[in-house]
Amino acid sequence: MNTNKTAVIALGGNAISPKGELDTIANQFRNTRKSCVAIMNFIKQGYHLAITHGNGPQVGNALLRVEMASDKAPRLPLGICDADTEGGMGYMIEQSLQNSLIQAQMDRDVVTIITQIIVDADDPSIQHPSKYIGGWYTKDEIARLAKKFGWQIKEIPGKGWRRVVPSPFPRKIINRKAIKHLVDLGIIVIAAGGGGIPVYIMENGLYEGFDAVIDKDLASSVLARDIGAQEFFILTDVDQIAINFGKANQEFIDTIRLDDLKALLGEGHFPAGSMGPKIQAAINFIENGGKTVIITSLETAQESLESGKYTRITP
Amino acid sequence: MNTNKTAVIALGGNAISPKGELDTIANQFRNTRKSCVAIMNFIKQGYHLAITHGNGPQVGNALLRVEMASDKAPRLPLGICDADTEGGMGYMIEQSLQNSLIQAQMDRDVVTIITQIIVDADDPSIQHPSKYIGGWYTKDEIARLAKKFGWQIKEIPGKGWRRVVPSPFPRKIINRKAIKHLVDLGIIVIAAGGGGIPVYIMENGLYEGFDAVIDKDLASSVLARDIGAQEFFILTDVDQIAINFGKANQEFIDTIRLDDLKALLGEGHFPAGSMGPKIQAAINFIENGGKTVIITSLETAQESLESGKYTRITP
Repeated sequence: MNTNKTAVIALGGNAISPKGELDTIANQFRNTRKSCVAIMNFIKQGYHLAITHGNGPQVGNALLRVEMASDKAPRLPLGICDADTEGGMGYMIEQSLQNSLIQAQMDRDVVTIITQIIVDADDPSIQHPSKYIGGWYTKDEIARLAKKFGWQIKEIPGKGWRRVVPSPFPRKIINRKAIKHLVDLGIIVIAAGGGGIPVYIMENGLYEGFDAVIDKDLASSVLARDIGAQEFFILTDVDQIAINFGKANQEFIDTIRLDDLKALLGEGHFPAGSMGPKIQAAINFIENGGKTVIITSLETAQESLESGKYTRITP
Repeated sequence: MNTNKTAVIALGGNAISPKGELDTIANQFRNTRKSCVAIMNFIKQGYHLAITHGNGPQVGNALLRVEMASDKAPRLPLGICDADTEGGMGYMIEQSLQNSLIQAQMDRDVVTIITQIIVDADDPSIQHPSKYIGGWYTKDEIARLAKKFGWQIKEIPGKGWRRVVPSPFPRKIINRKAIKHLVDLGIIVIAAGGGGIPVYIMENGLYEGFDAVIDKDLASSVLARDIGAQEFFILTDVDQIAINFGKANQEFIDTIRLDDLKALLGEGHFPAGSMGPKIQAAINFIENGGKTVIITSLETAQESLESGKYTRITP
């Protein structure tokens, strides 16, 4: 079956760097190869695909390296670190998927596109940075680093201190035309890694990067809209979403219409620190003309493709 | 004039990181913006373009950061560092060029493609690594690091010790199809940064990366061939090449035919450590059907485009 439907697949952090596992490159490659099993199901069904991924642990490590070598090697701003991880992680996912395709004797190209995303110069998060990034520090340690590198910092009470950066809302993929061309040709494109590189438009009309991080799922929904995808798959570490999560009256959500999901979001079922951005990303995609959003796990993605099971959001 | 000729432009190290200048990101961006002036001349003449660049200082710094943080952050192999610099430097060149286009009120897209390049699994350089990479060390320092990281090392007599890696010959761009599609559409593609990511094919048919570095100009000539470019511009730090370089009987080379250039290479006029790989890259491109190779500087590129002056190699 070759439907030639176009989909964006957003890989969760666990697809490459599961929590509690040492983040070595060997482990990352092994996890990525496993995740390719799920992606191959989409390819075998004839989907045209763009694939996005997180970069939390990787950009944290990149920043740590910059920090530890800062007296010997140039300091890299966060935007360059984001671009770096788009390159390195893109290469890893790309090569793993190419090898899966070779093993399946399928002839499909895979490429990685460094992705800049426009945000508003006056996004409210710029004045109120609250996205944690990088490692954990004591108050004294972080005070020294904040002074040296110009960080904004925040205490997580009882746990320690971390750097915070703005997390602006993504408006438009700068590289959308090239990504859409390639996806339409059937080339699998890895894009918007780590939420892409945030860029704003200065008063003189030129692009400028700055130290910020875009939520990966929100970036993916903008990508899905900008390349005209019909379907958007958010592959995370739960099989489906739930209301009253973790409580006695927890209820899993199967198929749900946009308006009903918006009502549940309004009732506070999806906290900003966990499922909230995924739900918001799903809503944005459907409101911008998308047909279906699936939220499920890597392991259940194939079953969801075949049976329509697990969380499916429709207009 | 819209000729729609396709060209590959290989930017020399001085386009981004001139020798003797602190390699900060601010300096790199400033130099890159200056280099875009030369690239804009090609765009205004209607060229379809792929742009390549070196990554010597950047990958050296990336390796230094990995080394200094190696007890706290995962060690990145050289292939990942190459991919990282393709991302970070690609972003920098891409955004600088996008801003030049905005200022010129020209509507052309620019994208960066992470580029893997196939090399032979039995390339002779793998047994005899000789490409210097990263910093300089004393004998004691490097002995400790070589043991810790498994480096091969080499003394530069009277100067110190450095790590060496293989520099295999590039055979084919894995991502050639996507790059060619985009270039043919008029999208400007930044590719094969730092010579690309070297990959060999294992006995089981799968791709595998390894610690090596491909010469940037040789990689660029393979890219130029693989995307069907007619012209290949090597922009370096001299206005044209010369025989008897630096001697009393030095003679600049203007237009030269392939056979004559091969004869001069055979006579030893172009040492392996300096102009040799550029000359070899030029020869390879013309022998594979390329029409013209220009070797000149960023500053003289426009004059060369208009007048045909400086070194021009033809079949």
